[in-house]
Amino acid sequence: MAYRVAVLGASGYTGGELLRLLALHPEVEVVAATSREYAGKPVHFVHFNLRGWYRGLRFTPFSVDAVLKSEADVVFSALPHGVGLEYTKTFYESGLTVVDLSADYRLRNPEAYKTWYGFEHPYPDLLEKAVYGLPELHREELRGARLIASPGCNATAAILALAPLAKERLVDLSRIIVDVKVGSSEGGSKPTRGSHHPERENAIRPYEPRGHRHAAEAEQELSRLAGSEVRVSLIPHAVSSIRGALASGHAWLLREVEEQTLLRLYAGFYRDSPFVRLVHGTPPGYPDPKYVAGSNYADVGFALEKRLGRVTGFAAIDNLVKGAAGQAVQAWNIAAGLPEDTGLRLPPLKPA
Amino acid sequence: MAYRVAVLGASGYTGGELLRLLALHPEVEVVAATSREYAGKPVHFVHFNLRGWYRGLRFTPFSVDAVLKSEADVVFSALPHGVGLEYTKTFYESGLTVVDLSADYRLRNPEAYKTWYGFEHPYPDLLEKAVYGLPELHREELRGARLIASPGCNATAAILALAPLAKERLVDLSRIIVDVKVGSSEGGSKPTRGSHHPERENAIRPYEPRGHRHAAEAEQELSRLAGSEVRVSLIPHAVSSIRGALASGHAWLLREVEEQTLLRLYAGFYRDSPFVRLVHGTPPGYPDPKYVAGSNYADVGFALEKRLGRVTGFAAIDNLVKGAAGQAVQAWNIAAGLPEDTGLRLPPLKPA
Amino acid sequence: MAYRVAVLGASGYTGGELLRLLALHPEVEVVAATSREYAGKPVHFVHFNLRGWYRGLRFTPFSVDAVLKSEADVVFSALPHGVGLEYTKTFYESGLTVVDLSADYRLRNPEAYKTWYGFEHPYPDLLEKAVYGLPELHREELRGARLIASPGCNATAAILALAPLAKERLVDLSRIIVDVKVGSSEGGSKPTRGSHHPERENAIRPYEPRGHRHAAEAEQELSRLAGSEVRVSLIPHAVSSIRGALASGHAWLLREVEEQTLLRLYAGFYRDSPFVRLVHGTPPGYPDPKYVAGSNYADVGFALEKRLGRVTGFAAIDNLVKGAAGQAVQAWNIAAGLPEDTGLRLPPLKPA
Amino acid sequence: MAYRVAVLGASGYTGGELLRLLALHPEVEVVAATSREYAGKPVHFVHFNLRGWYRGLRFTPFSVDAVLKSEADVVFSALPHGVGLEYTKTFYESGLTVVDLSADYRLRNPEAYKTWYGFEHPYPDLLEKAVYGLPELHREELRGARLIASPGCNATAAILALAPLAKERLVDLSRIIVDVKVGSSEGGSKPTRGSHHPERENAIRPYEPRGHRHAAEAEQELSRLAGSEVRVSLIPHAVSSIRGALASGHAWLLREVEEQTLLRLYAGFYRDSPFVRLVHGTPPGYPDPKYVAGSNYADVGFALEKRLGRVTGFAAIDNLVKGAAGQAVQAWNIAAGLPEDTGLRLPPLKPA
Repeated sequence: MAYRVAVLGASGYTGGELLRLLALHPEVEVVAATSREYAGKPVHFVHFNLRGWYRGLRFTPFSVDAVLKSEADVVFSALPHGVGLEYTKTFYESGLTVVDLSADYRLRNPEAYKTWYGFEHPYPDLLEKAVYGLPELHREELRGARLIASPGCNATAAILALAPLAKERLVDLSRIIVDVKVGSSEGGSKPTRGSHHPERENAIRPYEPRGHRHAAEAEQELSRLAGSEVRVSLIPHAVSSIRGALASGHAWLLREVEEQTLLRLYAGFYRDSPFVRLVHGTPPGYPDPKYVAGSNYADVGFALEKRLGRVTGFAAIDNLVKGAAGQAVQAWNIAAGLPEDTGLRLPPLKPA
Repeated sequence: MAYRVAVLGASGYTGGELLRLLALHPEVEVVAATSREYAGKPVHFVHFNLRGWYRGLRFTPFSVDAVLKSEADVVFSALPHGVGLEYTKTFYESGLTVVDLSADYRLRNPEAYKTWYGFEHPYPDLLEKAVYGLPELHREELRGARLIASPGCNATAAILALAPLAKERLVDLSRIIVDVKVGSSEGGSKPTRGSHHPERENAIRPYEPRGHRHAAEAEQELSRLAGSEVRVSLIPHAVSSIRGALASGHAWLLREVEEQTLLRLYAGFYRDSPFVRLVHGTPPGYPDPKYVAGSNYADVGFALEKRLGRVTGFAAIDNLVKGAAGQAVQAWNIAAGLPEDTGLRLPPLKPA
Repeated sequence: MAYRVAVLGASGYTGGELLRLLALHPEVEVVAATSREYAGKPVHFVHFNLRGWYRGLRFTPFSVDAVLKSEADVVFSALPHGVGLEYTKTFYESGLTVVDLSADYRLRNPEAYKTWYGFEHPYPDLLEKAVYGLPELHREELRGARLIASPGCNATAAILALAPLAKERLVDLSRIIVDVKVGSSEGGSKPTRGSHHPERENAIRPYEPRGHRHAAEAEQELSRLAGSEVRVSLIPHAVSSIRGALASGHAWLLREVEEQTLLRLYAGFYRDSPFVRLVHGTPPGYPDPKYVAGSNYADVGFALEKRLGRVTGFAAIDNLVKGAAGQAVQAWNIAAGLPEDTGLRLPPLKPA
Repeated sequence: MAYRVAVLGASGYTGGELLRLLALHPEVEVVAATSREYAGKPVHFVHFNLRGWYRGLRFTPFSVDAVLKSEADVVFSALPHGVGLEYTKTFYESGLTVVDLSADYRLRNPEAYKTWYGFEHPYPDLLEKAVYGLPELHREELRGARLIASPGCNATAAILALAPLAKERLVDLSRIIVDVKVGSSEGGSKPTRGSHHPERENAIRPYEPRGHRHAAEAEQELSRLAGSEVRVSLIPHAVSSIRGALASGHAWLLREVEEQTLLRLYAGFYRDSPFVRLVHGTPPGYPDPKYVAGSNYADVGFALEKRLGRVTGFAAIDNLVKGAAGQAVQAWNIAAGLPEDTGLRLPPLKPA
């Protein structure tokens, strides 16, 4: 196996999903998995699904030295926002490839960190070097990249739902509503009052509905595509599933357009993207994250209400795969010169 | 008990919910419950929850004569759209009070039936007599009414979420998105491929996303409040719950407004509505249909994104109660001169 | 309202359910609701369903004096096992009626507390005064009782499933397996790793499968019925529902018996029990806790495998109602000389 | 790819799961997928997860000739019990390898078909040639087999839970209770009243509790292991999950035994079985099908109640994988001389 990989923050859901996917990656050996809370325990102590896998691998407490000593070539960091900033810099400067699944390198504009995350970004120069790891938009820049900012899950869904419309400037770019519905795994692995099963199951609950941080990413990327400023109002809602996110990107058309035109537009935009599947017409009619469960697919589609000139772009993802670990692997595959789908050719689970 | 009630189409979910609520209504005796499919069976043969209730009551096949012979004073009709039109007319003209839970009398404009339901309404004169049974908007007209058009569930949630904003004309009335999330019971009691448990559970699925019929009701009612034409784009999404609908009514403010102003606006609008509860600030922060389960409450709230001038009105209901059977009873209570909450004073179930 | 009631430990699920049910009880005024964690907050701060109810009632920190000063006649205690022992004694000796929903007074034999709960019971004399609050078995003793030990949820289901068989001594009383399936609310309101939604939903998980404490109650009560020692092996399994417990009591017949004989036996045993409904033959065929949701019913039935001489008694309850709060109210109603179903005449919710 | 495979009855859940797994099998090309209902449609018309896979493959109506013409080497038949009997015989006699996922060849004793399935088995000679496709018990016989009877899902779980105890004759072999809890996908893909989402979700429902057919398989296999007649009372319960079955095999010990002895017994029995994982002691403590989702694993464990001499063997499987399609592939791999886990090395999905 050609690459030695360290997974930082490996005991959470994103970390666990990285381990699940990397177990199937033919070019990867996982040489370190860090966890403060579970240091010393085998990985299946937390990730019950991995019993029988990674024999001998135990969580280690995170330390820069330990990771460097592991002779990892690549670091996938699932540390929380802000926490890993200093470390990822060190690894990057030590010559490792860094795939950061936190928000630490997603925004190009250092100012934006103050606005959206409440801290001053200490390494604006690194922001210039980081590539936003959404292969459908940045495939070329990813080749050879050594610092990859893996996108947020809601941002991924929002962008994929609307990218063709934004690029073509078909809709009012100042009046976009992205109403997202997400499963409970998006909240991470830490129990809270709101995540307690009796409180969380059957919920249909707005959260951070006054403007969610992932809007910053969506605005950045859609603006780049459109060539002018795009404003996105992003409102997530917690629903009962464990996995899955559906972004419904509602927008107002600037001119009349036929359904077939939109269909060609979406099909053309994603022609070379192996993990985007267009769902239109045939069952189930529209994207539903239920049917991408466990896979790296984004199912994309749209609905046109001609009466009102309203179009909704939909994107359905598994938030832990295309919304996190799978997309990180996909982006890194491209960076490493591997086929984009290496280790990721898995059909979704159904019914699930 | 003062009133003799017949429930038409009593074996479906709305019918069952009417029977559940009427069992607790001190002024009502159910004298007939019709069902073609289950004629001759006791009501608990279908409504397993009602075992031990309505002893001796069996479903009867529907016939005008049978209902008239039952000496019912009031008919609650849960027959499908179009199916009951002729019969409800007959009952109304025979002097009975008719509460129709189908769409047959909801729209004032006969033309609208062609557009939205695909048939020519045969009794435009009755449309003029019917009162739209949303007590929060039509409490006065309901008093003494004999033909009540009980609102659609999605329409109820959409209207309650946005009514204060529409009345005050605070938002762009031509650019309203109502993104609704609903549980599986909204689809009725008939099994289909899409409602099969392995296919329906964990779904996050747009349905009729090109403009749902309930938009016609929302437009009618919000326009009346605003005094000018309101356009509503209504997009439902099926999510995993059994009961519950949340309408997220996204709109663009026409002028800057403070959160406190909105709070007063909503509080004022619903001051006299015993079944509307304002959820703002205190936990759970925003309306969630989980916390109205089994009750006639509509929990209403809003979120303001000042950065973009976007406001979202939320309304959470139990689609079978405030979205159907409960609201029908509430409206009829008013029509009959009873206290509005007669038979409906039930706290929601939690956790559920 | 004739009775002043204090609810101790009112912020948990059992406490919340007591408040929900007592809100509908015509003879009760809740004068105190204690909670250490939420002292000072209105009850709806925790019990979102109760928004609009109990206006003015706030949680108070628990203290004996405060409860006595509230001039409560009755105390419903949902404090944890062991925690409330001293207090309930005080209240009882001060002349109040005490309904204790913990295990503190359920076992007659003081020795059993060492075996099953790991502490020496300090008040064996009180154990003699306490009445086990299962009305179906102790209706007569409950009349006038002032210390009621409300049964455990799994014990309630186990006993109701098997009582007729035990009383008739139809089965091998030394070889009884009670396999229970329960929803997540049984674990209480405190978030844990195992109750975290992504970990709890879709679980089918044995817990405490080496012999659950509620077996002690089941053995005590079934032995009393049988007139000789009954051994019960009770194995709970956590399943996905929020509410609901089904006990499947598997036993081996000592002699051949016909289905009709069993049917008569069960029907006879529960003839005077308004909250037990026999489910046999008609749909849904066997008891399912889904169809008692929110109500105080226990649906009871059985299945006979003649080939092997095996009979399974089933009892389906809502663990928070018949398994906790509802049963406590029912038992107290009897103690207080009120009709057994006062405040409890509520049909289950369906579908739910 | 070395083998040409035809999947019969490919539009149901088992068929879909076969297609999902065979898509990842390096030695297999699927050359035909039959479906009466969906003939002419692409496979993703039904199996939404497979969009983008099997390009060009459409369902064909079943016919013996068509399958023979497809030059398939292997037939996986997911046709219903009885329906495929004649066809599988023809394929077998034409020299194809037949893996039958129905019950048609599972029982060795032709008489048993009358008792359990209500028909006289027409080909008792074939029953002698068929190998029961549970690799953990029949690995050697499977090598080179051309007629494989793939086990039932409940039977698989029941047998794996109890096999070590039966072989060692540690328990009363005449008094075994297997209480199974299963997800909704076990009922197949056809919508019914009971599988309708609002009726099925939150159910805890005994089904066929008077003795389920899969007991016949469990008795046959456990008897073989024990060397004497074993009686199994098998009682399934439908619970809320989509995938997953947990068998809790309750039995009475014939002699005292220590936990460590049992642990060694189970570990020894499954030493060479790559898809059985022993769960004991470390979290989650006991097998839970949640943690084998999507995989071919059977997680096996036990609980000992020393007080009563009761032991419960647990086995948790994904009913569509180890309980159906995955096990069929595993057994065929062995028959074909391939590594047992070819195409099946997939970690379960978690959380899911």
